[in-house]
Amino acid sequence: MTMETTSWREHRAWLAALPDPVPDTLSSPPEVAEYEAAAFARRYGEAAPIFRFALDEALGESYALEQPGPDRITVRGGRQGLLYGTYEALFDLICEKPLPSGVQSPAYRLRMLDCWDNPDGSVERGYAGRSLWFEGGAFAYAPERIRQLGRMLASAGINVLCINNVNVGAEARALIGERLPETAEFARLLRPFGVRLMLSIDFSSPMYMEEPDGGPLPSADPLDEEVCRWWQRRAALVYRAIPDLAGFLVKADSEHRPGPNTYGRSHAQGANMLAAALAPYGGTLVWRAFVYNCMQDWRDTKTDRPCAAYDLYAPLDGQFAENVVLQVKNGPYDFQVREPVSPLLLGMKNTALALELQLAQEYTGQQIDLFAMPPVWRGIFDQMGKEKLRAVAAVSNLGRDDNWTGHPFAALNLLAFGRFAWDPDRDPAEEIRRWVRLSGYEEDEEALTALLLRSARVYEKYTAPLGLCWMLNPEGHYGPSPWGYEFSVWGTYNRADRERVGVDRTAAGTGLVKQYPPELAALYEDPARCPDELLLFFHRLPYSFRMKDGRTLIQRIYDDHFEGYEEVLRMREAVSALHLPPWDRPVVEERMRRQLADAREWRDVTNTFFHRLSGVPDEKGRKIYD
Amino acid sequence: MTMETTSWREHRAWLAALPDPVPDTLSSPPEVAEYEAAAFARRYGEAAPIFRFALDEALGESYALEQPGPDRITVRGGRQGLLYGTYEALFDLICEKPLPSGVQSPAYRLRMLDCWDNPDGSVERGYAGRSLWFEGGAFAYAPERIRQLGRMLASAGINVLCINNVNVGAEARALIGERLPETAEFARLLRPFGVRLMLSIDFSSPMYMEEPDGGPLPSADPLDEEVCRWWQRRAALVYRAIPDLAGFLVKADSEHRPGPNTYGRSHAQGANMLAAALAPYGGTLVWRAFVYNCMQDWRDTKTDRPCAAYDLYAPLDGQFAENVVLQVKNGPYDFQVREPVSPLLLGMKNTALALELQLAQEYTGQQIDLFAMPPVWRGIFDQMGKEKLRAVAAVSNLGRDDNWTGHPFAALNLLAFGRFAWDPDRDPAEEIRRWVRLSGYEEDEEALTALLLRSARVYEKYTAPLGLCWMLNPEGHYGPSPWGYEFSVWGTYNRADRERVGVDRTAAGTGLVKQYPPELAALYEDPARCPDELLLFFHRLPYSFRMKDGRTLIQRIYDDHFEGYEEVLRMREAVSALHLPPWDRPVVEERMRRQLADAREWRDVTNTFFHRLSGVPDEKGRKIYD
Repeated sequence: MTMETTSWREHRAWLAALPDPVPDTLSSPPEVAEYEAAAFARRYGEAAPIFRFALDEALGESYALEQPGPDRITVRGGRQGLLYGTYEALFDLICEKPLPSGVQSPAYRLRMLDCWDNPDGSVERGYAGRSLWFEGGAFAYAPERIRQLGRMLASAGINVLCINNVNVGAEARALIGERLPETAEFARLLRPFGVRLMLSIDFSSPMYMEEPDGGPLPSADPLDEEVCRWWQRRAALVYRAIPDLAGFLVKADSEHRPGPNTYGRSHAQGANMLAAALAPYGGTLVWRAFVYNCMQDWRDTKTDRPCAAYDLYAPLDGQFAENVVLQVKNGPYDFQVREPVSPLLLGMKNTALALELQLAQEYTGQQIDLFAMPPVWRGIFDQMGKEKLRAVAAVSNLGRDDNWTGHPFAALNLLAFGRFAWDPDRDPAEEIRRWVRLSGYEEDEEALTALLLRSARVYEKYTAPLGLCWMLNPEGHYGPSPWGYEFSVWGTYNRADRERVGVDRTAAGTGLVKQYPPELAALYEDPARCPDELLLFFHRLPYSFRMKDGRTLIQRIYDDHFEGYEEVLRMREAVSALHLPPWDRPVVEERMRRQLADAREWRDVTNTFFHRLSGVPDEKGRKIYD
Repeated sequence: MTMETTSWREHRAWLAALPDPVPDTLSSPPEVAEYEAAAFARRYGEAAPIFRFALDEALGESYALEQPGPDRITVRGGRQGLLYGTYEALFDLICEKPLPSGVQSPAYRLRMLDCWDNPDGSVERGYAGRSLWFEGGAFAYAPERIRQLGRMLASAGINVLCINNVNVGAEARALIGERLPETAEFARLLRPFGVRLMLSIDFSSPMYMEEPDGGPLPSADPLDEEVCRWWQRRAALVYRAIPDLAGFLVKADSEHRPGPNTYGRSHAQGANMLAAALAPYGGTLVWRAFVYNCMQDWRDTKTDRPCAAYDLYAPLDGQFAENVVLQVKNGPYDFQVREPVSPLLLGMKNTALALELQLAQEYTGQQIDLFAMPPVWRGIFDQMGKEKLRAVAAVSNLGRDDNWTGHPFAALNLLAFGRFAWDPDRDPAEEIRRWVRLSGYEEDEEALTALLLRSARVYEKYTAPLGLCWMLNPEGHYGPSPWGYEFSVWGTYNRADRERVGVDRTAAGTGLVKQYPPELAALYEDPARCPDELLLFFHRLPYSFRMKDGRTLIQRIYDDHFEGYEEVLRMREAVSALHLPPWDRPVVEERMRRQLADAREWRDVTNTFFHRLSGVPDEKGRKIYD
């Protein structure tokens, strides 16, 4: 089944300057590289330099760019490196930037986009329309659009696309079963761009899938030899169809998903069994570390969800097979607006790790509110220091909307993610500016860059106070609800009362700080030193607590919320003044209008909540509703 | 399409003692009456009296029972009265009660069951499985089960069944369009039981439905002659197919439904236009008065949702056509656990009114928690005094579950509703006892009657404090969430802070009390006289307020919640000791277990909420969680 629409073609995101579409005759990265350079030359004529390509297989994904003369560029690289080098050169030309010197190599081997797409066409936490490749239980797509997607991903340096939701339902099991030929056909479409598929699998698949040589098994116990053989046979079938498959992604024993715990086995045992099935083919088994008690009793103040992953996985450090990657969300909770780096990312010295980010703005405005992530990532990578990662993954913000990402500006996060995954030392302002230029917004380069650079901080100010999480609507995750999660099973409590707010996660409290390396632990442990923006993540404090700048905690909360809204007002003015193309303006302005209403709601609900509890008036006499 | 299952047959609700099923050969109420009496005699042999029937057409639905000898009963009545009299006599025999003397006539002409069933088979706010007659967009049912339903309704005295949701979607419009023959066939099945269909219609139907003589109209303006003619033609078609149709039910200008306000017309103009189309056929137009601003800003403390209906309809009193009935929910909010009687029911002297109750336990435990309604209705009818109603309606608690109502004990509410609609002076304890006997639980008559008689008060104690409404989960309406609705658009606020709780609805506040007759207004206006259970419905009071019994308001809230849970503990013991049939025990015990967990959750969340805000400890030192 194919679906052809063409209205997306004018929405080329950051490929605005490249000819569209790519033909279906190209079958390898070097061919795509030559096509892109030639097409660019055709478009820009004499202004375009002449490209030469020098294949050096040993370079793999790496490349080097040389300029033997003013109008000539030589791209030297491996098969994939040639393509990456070509995009880098073309983009640098468009942005009028100097080419990088020396051999360019990716910092992380796997640069993955995790899509939470379901075969029925829905996208879990998707804010850009329905799935780009699924509908009605099967694959359904326009090949031309998938090629454009492959091109976008390659141009961002992303080399793995996990195409189905980590919550794997019955229909998605078929991707490695009766629908495997369709999966292979989809993989073939992306191969010219060096984008390899990954598949989310259901740990209990052997209990549900018919095998050619027998019915489903009674168990999915990873130490059961029948189960091991089942997965070995299955991997063989899958790799016969898709020889370059990147591997499997697994969410196990998490939020009611099946897993090895059912059989009294550890996650290392579960992961290693699957990894062994993939090893002969060079496949990677990515195991998500997003595991916690999602049936917590709110009365239980000892259990603290952010502690859960470290408690579970730290004892397993060193037990995972070589081709297992443990995929860890950036913070210990779940993609909240502000979290410290997950202690697991800092503590698993003998385990291959993947950092998992979320481009889908589940908790950060749902691609309605502006939230440019590079400044946030700068903080995360800085905090992680020189920790060794094997992979960086991000939950996709893509969908079938014409503009790919719901809000056209949200495409920035996808491009920038790929570039940070290639080189985590990137400068956020530079990456935003690059996206602005490439996307055809160069007339507004200064204004738009400034707007976006500030946007995450603005969103944080009018939403989450000083690292308090989960004060939002449980249904939909959009908009404020200070106690919407307070008495739930999700382990998500602010425990505000008339005197205090926050959870004490110091050594004397739930002990989360003890999971951090000594220096960070000491920093977070002391409310006088703890960074303001994480103060209420780690501490339970009275409203009268004095912040570093002398303000009280409650006054700081009020100030942030009033100021955050004021900043959105100014953002709206800035957005109105932008020179947007006709296909962008209506959606950008309509979403800006919603962001303003959203910011007002957050401001007032949050301030009213704390005012009702604390009884403390705003020092500046601004309006707080009763 | 028909669907045959038989596992429901052992669940005969209060018809336990009557032979099952009724044959499909009976075509009129007198025939059903003779069949029931004869079948009863076959079953009970010599113990059964001999029935004689004396048709007196003039009596209509009324009847008189006479006992010319110890083993003889004469039923004198109209065609429908014969059937009602027979059920009364049979039930009195089973319950060993004396027959009523004199002519028995219903207090209200229309005794309606409003079903919120959708053609797709779902039931809005249904807690007993899917629709009994819809599935997959069309009618789909087992005729035998529908006959049994007709028998149940007739035996309860219910004479109108509105078969589709008041929220009428595109599929449901077809019930008076291309699916009219199916609708008529369904009506035919219920006709022998004297149950007439009513249909919920979409006010904007003329804009969506194709007509034989032309396409949809551009408007649904009730003063547009084209629109009037459209409805006249449509009514003619419908009554040709279903000559005894009771009429149409309309939810207009409410919760985003279309209505006359769109065209600047009043609700009287909208209703009268439709009523004129029904008048030639004796049909009734039932117009729901459930209209309020469902996009309220929580910051707006002037707008008060419970005032909305009276404000809108009181000025229209006297303007409605003779065959319009204004259907008013029992309270001014929306079926909350405790509300005063709607002032509209007390104030519309020149309008035919229907009282609308809700058997579906949307806000009262969802047929998991026990909540027997007759004691609540006793209070409502007592408060209403001798107000003249033309109809009583109830939102159905029926569904496709084998036991009809999800919880087998919830069937009590259906039977008792019919009996209160016949005679609003019923005694709750007697009605509960009657249902217990008829349902085959006679071995537990005392225990089960006592349990149920108390159940609504127990539910109220552990949930809603002193008339505070809406402190529950917005998603699903089950379980506590004190501020889940607090900052929403629904007009549902408790405005609790660290000193006070409640909304001031006195003359000095939102003025709701002024909508009541002087005596009631004076009672509600004064917190010293206002009934305890409505105190926080009408007043905003400090936690230190002294109740009539000397306790503080906050202590009373704590006490009620602790005691409510303790009572559920005792209910569970009582339930365990019941002699339940094997088809009831698992579901009753499983739901009792859930009720206990539910009560604990309500107790702790509510007490913690008020403790966090007020800081006041429990005088008795019981555990309140932080």
